[in-house]
Amino acid sequence: MPHARLEKLYNAMAVSKLDAVAINPGPTLTYLTGLSFHLMERPVVMFFTPGKDPAFILPELETPKLGHLPYKVQAFPYPELPGEWIKAFRKGVQALGITGKSIGVEPRALRILEYRFIEQAAPGSTFPDASEALAALRIAKDADEIAKMRQAVVIAQNALKASIPLIKIGMSEKELAAELTIQLLKHGSSPELPFAPIVSSGPNSANPHASPSDRKLQAGDMLVVDWGAAHDGYISDLTRTFAVGDVDAECQKIHKIVQEANAAGRAAGKPGAACAVVDKAARDVIEKSGYGVYFNHRTGHGIGMEGHEDPYMRGDNLQILEPGMCYTVEPGIYLTERNGVRIEDNLVITEHGAESMSDMEREIRVVGI
Amino acid sequence: MPHARLEKLYNAMAVSKLDAVAINPGPTLTYLTGLSFHLMERPVVMFFTPGKDPAFILPELETPKLGHLPYKVQAFPYPELPGEWIKAFRKGVQALGITGKSIGVEPRALRILEYRFIEQAAPGSTFPDASEALAALRIAKDADEIAKMRQAVVIAQNALKASIPLIKIGMSEKELAAELTIQLLKHGSSPELPFAPIVSSGPNSANPHASPSDRKLQAGDMLVVDWGAAHDGYISDLTRTFAVGDVDAECQKIHKIVQEANAAGRAAGKPGAACAVVDKAARDVIEKSGYGVYFNHRTGHGIGMEGHEDPYMRGDNLQILEPGMCYTVEPGIYLTERNGVRIEDNLVITEHGAESMSDMEREIRVVGI
Repeated sequence: MPHARLEKLYNAMAVSKLDAVAINPGPTLTYLTGLSFHLMERPVVMFFTPGKDPAFILPELETPKLGHLPYKVQAFPYPELPGEWIKAFRKGVQALGITGKSIGVEPRALRILEYRFIEQAAPGSTFPDASEALAALRIAKDADEIAKMRQAVVIAQNALKASIPLIKIGMSEKELAAELTIQLLKHGSSPELPFAPIVSSGPNSANPHASPSDRKLQAGDMLVVDWGAAHDGYISDLTRTFAVGDVDAECQKIHKIVQEANAAGRAAGKPGAACAVVDKAARDVIEKSGYGVYFNHRTGHGIGMEGHEDPYMRGDNLQILEPGMCYTVEPGIYLTERNGVRIEDNLVITEHGAESMSDMEREIRVVGI
Repeated sequence: MPHARLEKLYNAMAVSKLDAVAINPGPTLTYLTGLSFHLMERPVVMFFTPGKDPAFILPELETPKLGHLPYKVQAFPYPELPGEWIKAFRKGVQALGITGKSIGVEPRALRILEYRFIEQAAPGSTFPDASEALAALRIAKDADEIAKMRQAVVIAQNALKASIPLIKIGMSEKELAAELTIQLLKHGSSPELPFAPIVSSGPNSANPHASPSDRKLQAGDMLVVDWGAAHDGYISDLTRTFAVGDVDAECQKIHKIVQEANAAGRAAGKPGAACAVVDKAARDVIEKSGYGVYFNHRTGHGIGMEGHEDPYMRGDNLQILEPGMCYTVEPGIYLTERNGVRIEDNLVITEHGAESMSDMEREIRVVGI
């Protein structure tokens, strides 16, 4: 399989007229090599060019990982002394003969740290943005990848179900986030979660990207829980919103609207439809309800190895959905300083439509009492 | 306090002759603003220049975080459409008047994503490496920071102590890593751990950067556990090595040598000593034992908000230790394809020497039976 992925890469590079690509640790490197590295103070870069074994620049202490590579590479390990690092980059670039060539990069992943070594080792080269070509390699998931994502959804749903009975008025957002994290691990998530759960209540729930705080849950709060699991390199990313005790009529109303928007968004995807259609389907429900101004983000994003990846469900994205593409549908309404609601599911495009891999109940549910 | 941090920044910039700095999400931004962001597909950058309120480029949906800033900033939020993002960068750069100036960057944090927006918005500027000046701001921890780190050590030690009785022959590395992660959270770590625990056994323990695998613990294995907790933005990073059942004489021997090297490294730090002295103290013990070639990494790294930060305990690092600096001492011996040992503690430089914040027993201990 990984050889097939290398072939796919070289074909994509030919289409994009790239002589080489330079990949640092992140999902693309993991997809192409099966290896995972953390982004650290030591640069790690693999150069790919058709017809030659890839050149791998890495710290000496990471060389045990080379034994797990699915194909032959030329390794250029460097010792601990930073002054020596550029030599390894020069050797790698020379081995592939890519000086002065067009070397594609991923701006979202590559740091100035690696970039300056690459620039210095390959003078006169250009560094076009290869993000789209590289994202396209893994945008449509195969059956094996989809099975892993389904399992990541099952783990996440089971973990939240186990946490709900533990929710109590007076508990802090941080306490609930810790409990949910424990349940994620107990239910089989990989230890490295895709992201730390968001648990936000009352006014904090009106911030789509809140971090759990010491705020204690109070009756009348909306409670947004945005969480996910990781399984074998693939992730889930879900959101449900609860009512803590009795909530006012407007909270109930916006929950119902978001639930309808989520349903419309889930129904809109199919092969041949543009991503924008999914965004519009969900957004129209909220706009018609008069709350359009309180839905200030796109309807969803692709998921797979990363929490956020292509394709994005945005009003300006005319990218066409294809079988195997996986993405979130997550409309929300955020009443600043008061309360927020978001409901998020994980979908996969099938031959005929879009299937939600997540099926946990979306109706408003009272917790904490 | 954060105003004081801004003053410190401007003083450091004057010394380094920087007109401005551009900071993206990471520990430096958190240190300077108290805010934390994830690195995502949407660029987030704060520009600082003396005498003006910092300019903050961020997505509209992140603007609720502005309410938590400790000082006034000029916010330039951008909408979801990527085509609009450059406008926010241009406005921010213009508001500070830093076009064509010397804008310091952090190559380890800044990505090509942000860099290309900055280059485009501030044509003719230069982008010197400001890493050292910025790292120096937070290299010596104050009493409040050290208290947080001590607590992160306590949480980590308690979590491992609670996990040891659960270790059994036949358990996989992944299972133990999951259990330890659960214990870290139960004992009070923040949900976002500094890193997923490393649990490596037998031949895997000879890889300093192993990831937990499905390999099951066997009698005769050395078992390396490298783990840490997070508390209020500060972290711990410890390692202990166990014997699974009976291990051979060489395993016992290398454990004893590493324990002595760790003790020598812990004893070597003091105000006025160079980092290289700490490395040499630990390395000498291992070299004299004849295992020098099997210790293939530096003796330690700074810790604080990050897992790896200045100062680095490396043979070529003549940086002088000062009170408040915190770092790891973590010598190891790695017998490739056989077994490895590492023992890691977290130290803080005091007025007269170096104190280990971690005190969990370092002697070889038999587990799993």
